[in-house]
Amino acid sequence: MNELVEVQYAIDTFYFLVCGALVLWMAAGFSMLEAGLVRAKNTTEILTKNVALYAIACTMYMLIGYNIMYLGGGNGFFPSLGFMIGAEHTLDEVLSSGGDIYYSARSDFFFQVVFVATAMSIVSGAVAERMKLWSFLLFAVIMTAFIYPIQAYWSWGGGFLDAAGFSDYAGSGIVHLCGASAALAGVLVLGPRKGKYGKNGAINAIPGANMPLATLGTFILWLGWMGFNGGSELKLSDLGSANAVAQVFANTNAAASGGVIAALILAKLWFRKADLTMGLNGAIAGLVAITAGPSAPSILAATLVGAVGGVIVVFGIVALDKLRIDDPVGAISAHGIVGIWGLLAVPLTNGDASFGAQLLGMFAIFIWTFVASLVVWLIIKAIMGVRVSEEEEYEGVDIAECGLEAYPEFTSGR
Amino acid sequence: MNELVEVQYAIDTFYFLVCGALVLWMAAGFSMLEAGLVRAKNTTEILTKNVALYAIACTMYMLIGYNIMYLGGGNGFFPSLGFMIGAEHTLDEVLSSGGDIYYSARSDFFFQVVFVATAMSIVSGAVAERMKLWSFLLFAVIMTAFIYPIQAYWSWGGGFLDAAGFSDYAGSGIVHLCGASAALAGVLVLGPRKGKYGKNGAINAIPGANMPLATLGTFILWLGWMGFNGGSELKLSDLGSANAVAQVFANTNAAASGGVIAALILAKLWFRKADLTMGLNGAIAGLVAITAGPSAPSILAATLVGAVGGVIVVFGIVALDKLRIDDPVGAISAHGIVGIWGLLAVPLTNGDASFGAQLLGMFAIFIWTFVASLVVWLIIKAIMGVRVSEEEEYEGVDIAECGLEAYPEFTSGR
Amino acid sequence: MNELVEVQYAIDTFYFLVCGALVLWMAAGFSMLEAGLVRAKNTTEILTKNVALYAIACTMYMLIGYNIMYLGGGNGFFPSLGFMIGAEHTLDEVLSSGGDIYYSARSDFFFQVVFVATAMSIVSGAVAERMKLWSFLLFAVIMTAFIYPIQAYWSWGGGFLDAAGFSDYAGSGIVHLCGASAALAGVLVLGPRKGKYGKNGAINAIPGANMPLATLGTFILWLGWMGFNGGSELKLSDLGSANAVAQVFANTNAAASGGVIAALILAKLWFRKADLTMGLNGAIAGLVAITAGPSAPSILAATLVGAVGGVIVVFGIVALDKLRIDDPVGAISAHGIVGIWGLLAVPLTNGDASFGAQLLGMFAIFIWTFVASLVVWLIIKAIMGVRVSEEEEYEGVDIAECGLEAYPEFTSGR
Repeated sequence: MNELVEVQYAIDTFYFLVCGALVLWMAAGFSMLEAGLVRAKNTTEILTKNVALYAIACTMYMLIGYNIMYLGGGNGFFPSLGFMIGAEHTLDEVLSSGGDIYYSARSDFFFQVVFVATAMSIVSGAVAERMKLWSFLLFAVIMTAFIYPIQAYWSWGGGFLDAAGFSDYAGSGIVHLCGASAALAGVLVLGPRKGKYGKNGAINAIPGANMPLATLGTFILWLGWMGFNGGSELKLSDLGSANAVAQVFANTNAAASGGVIAALILAKLWFRKADLTMGLNGAIAGLVAITAGPSAPSILAATLVGAVGGVIVVFGIVALDKLRIDDPVGAISAHGIVGIWGLLAVPLTNGDASFGAQLLGMFAIFIWTFVASLVVWLIIKAIMGVRVSEEEEYEGVDIAECGLEAYPEFTSGR
Repeated sequence: MNELVEVQYAIDTFYFLVCGALVLWMAAGFSMLEAGLVRAKNTTEILTKNVALYAIACTMYMLIGYNIMYLGGGNGFFPSLGFMIGAEHTLDEVLSSGGDIYYSARSDFFFQVVFVATAMSIVSGAVAERMKLWSFLLFAVIMTAFIYPIQAYWSWGGGFLDAAGFSDYAGSGIVHLCGASAALAGVLVLGPRKGKYGKNGAINAIPGANMPLATLGTFILWLGWMGFNGGSELKLSDLGSANAVAQVFANTNAAASGGVIAALILAKLWFRKADLTMGLNGAIAGLVAITAGPSAPSILAATLVGAVGGVIVVFGIVALDKLRIDDPVGAISAHGIVGIWGLLAVPLTNGDASFGAQLLGMFAIFIWTFVASLVVWLIIKAIMGVRVSEEEEYEGVDIAECGLEAYPEFTSGR
Repeated sequence: MNELVEVQYAIDTFYFLVCGALVLWMAAGFSMLEAGLVRAKNTTEILTKNVALYAIACTMYMLIGYNIMYLGGGNGFFPSLGFMIGAEHTLDEVLSSGGDIYYSARSDFFFQVVFVATAMSIVSGAVAERMKLWSFLLFAVIMTAFIYPIQAYWSWGGGFLDAAGFSDYAGSGIVHLCGASAALAGVLVLGPRKGKYGKNGAINAIPGANMPLATLGTFILWLGWMGFNGGSELKLSDLGSANAVAQVFANTNAAASGGVIAALILAKLWFRKADLTMGLNGAIAGLVAITAGPSAPSILAATLVGAVGGVIVVFGIVALDKLRIDDPVGAISAHGIVGIWGLLAVPLTNGDASFGAQLLGMFAIFIWTFVASLVVWLIIKAIMGVRVSEEEEYEGVDIAECGLEAYPEFTSGR
């Protein structure tokens, strides 16, 4: 029945495209979240960064990254560079593949390309309010062309982590820890914002300018994550796959809910206030936590995995501040520390995973990404600098970098 | 042809998941709408409420509500508590069910859970700017675990309203009137905002702080409603179902359009101004109005059903203000009064429905939800209070409850 | 196998509905983009315009436009008026159609109706900050009932442009150039905003009030365009169609990316600043450019088509300002000038298209829309005027037209 095979092919392709579109939407989520959490004077620049990094990710991944990750072959550790995304599948190829080829090559590219952008989006928030725009964009070029694809090849392109049994369903490690590791390297090279840390261990809160935007961004991410995790089953068209995709949707939503509740209650108990930003980071933490294994746990277990993530992110944010690692939006905590939790939670609910392989994957991703990023950041620093001048930081990077205020009528004269 | 059955199963499951994701998105819509319509000083709190109530709804419905509504059995009036969402369907079950089982159990849960959150979201706007955060969240726990599921069981779980021929396609009554009834009880217990009603019947307008947000929220709801109504056909994979789903999409969009046009023209004639908030409420009213029966009318008739909703909501908002029932966002009018119109409009276009059954459903839903909610609100009032102090209300609940301003740089010093 | 035919029908119908919902979402995108790029005092009015024009488009297209465009017959140049959207397809019709009928008539209507709204949305930005609300809405009635449908009939309804081989996949010309031509006529009738152009050729920048909104709007459009172009393949359920749809998604995303990068780099080189608004217009330009032919080019070629669009839009915005044609959001450049580039780019990658037919289509669409719009604008001007009074323009149209400030707490007292 070739017609039925074509229908299955069409369904699985459409499933990828719809889920990919939801992940594309996460670019808006990161933009709004980050724009809401910085000060007004640095808002245009972070919006510019987010739009530009998404465009750069899509272009560099097409030119180089996708080929490294999937088309190259290689020895499992070093990928070899493949060719540009080639011809589409024909019906004959599909029929003779014995089920291995069952969706459009272009739909796979579209789904993968928006993941790279997600990893890169994590970086922009952490380095906000003090980094030079073009230094950041240059890093984005390297990150999306090489750093991310090489480690993603290890797991998803058939490399050594895949062979070792590392289990990371949609990328708690491969996407989120990777992004957070690059962010950490950037933050260490960059240093904290002026005025963030005072003498005698004083930590000054620098409130974000626009809470509705931050909330909107979080909801966008929540929705987009349905595609991020939901599409990572990679197949929909049979009963078992459809059940798995449904499980992933339900679990992803549940984990985010658990993260919100845990983070808000912890904030209330600890700080005596229901700190909205902690609640939002709780949602993201819940989502990151479940990402490594959303198809195995029950909905209740998924809620708990998310709730633990929500607790971890609050402690993580406080701890990084004590270490004077200045991450204006909490990205390193929410994506990095909680990403590690996500990886380690997999063996708790999925008998096919082992702690050993998870730890191996975690260290491999972190060390590679952190070291490679650090080298790149330092090279960029040497060539063109990474930090705006003290005066530009005081005035806000919007005028200096973009020549444009984000809210010219709301804040002028102050 | 088992493979074809599996494809149908996959399609119907995916249809639920996509529509469910759109309903999830409505949580963002309510957040933005409500955040735009309150004053700046109460914005962080309403955002916190919306994020938290969504998380609570997802968790409580999983733990208790879904089991009451669908898995319990019961005698048609009192549901009995079932078990936690159990095993997924196997192919054998699907094949031997004679067509009764045709989509993933998890996809059904996902679709249903986002409906509960919608009902609860309606409440948060009505009680805005003066309610204690944690009293509200405690009510959300009871509402989403018990109050909503019990009446939803009457109709959608095979209870007495279903047996009586009550017809409410996607929930003008079961979701929207239910939410509005709980809101009304809360508003009566709470009383109006300070300064809203003066002496001699004076009604003071309290303008919302951010119209673009309110507009964005309305558009989000408009889009999300495609899933809310569109998914409620519950089946897509045959020609008749596909035609019905398409009819529902077209009619839902048309009704919202009718609501906007009618409300804006009425506002222009009555108040001499094209009041945007009336236009937005007109859209929501159109959507609520068509929700009880979007698959039967022609597109033109659906436009008219929505237009009548748009007229009703304007009168409703004015009437509630005359009664000194203070609903800052117009939720009781848009979801409650118009929800009743939606229920009563069904027999006009659908010969299978009767006014008698619609009235029975309307009263059953309203009385149960209003009385149960009133009792719960009063108990919460007795235990921990429901209203912030007068000083906190004056200063804004954001600082008092969340320790965080929504727009610290735009409004400070005033 | 009737069941398989029904499944195909269901898939193709659902594909239309999902893509149509994404195009519906573009209404929110235009609203946010335009609301972000105008001054605070004119924000409520532009939001009102956008909500109302969408509602009007949906209603007028149902009543008149759809019938002109698809159901009328006619002689290829003058359409004849058909009947209201009629009965749905039966299985017998589908089976006996030989493959011509393969999706729900209602899903087609839903997909088409949101396109009309898109064309009309383009106008609202260009005439922002000075046009009377009700004059604009009256124009929207004529545009969506007659002007757009008549020229769309020429291409998509089987008229003379279709016969001439004019190739415009999703409407770089039919939707975007059409909208921009109507906008240009409106802007010429209306004249520039007070204070925009000074003596001796001085051009005063009038910065938009809310950059995050403008960015959000652009991301919404970016996402929505996946449905706009992705749905225009009109079929999904076989392998060739699925591959084509995937190609369109990947290419549309790539073209937007190319547009961003090109526009930002050009802005940096030319103005020495990474002007965010140019980057946003670059994204839109990339999307408009690829819309005429997204299924033929490779992803790399699509990126380049978009990049050229990104360059053109920057020059277009500067050139229109030199000509003292005041378009506050750059809509005429992004949709009109770049729309022409999109049409002319088709023969570069698609051997079935010819420059002659593309030029014919371009002139036909532009001349018809511009002249018909100009006549309508002038009639409206004669009857009720098109421009608010100088005092109303100074005070802002929000108070005058809507009786409501968009941000009453952020800008008051200034």
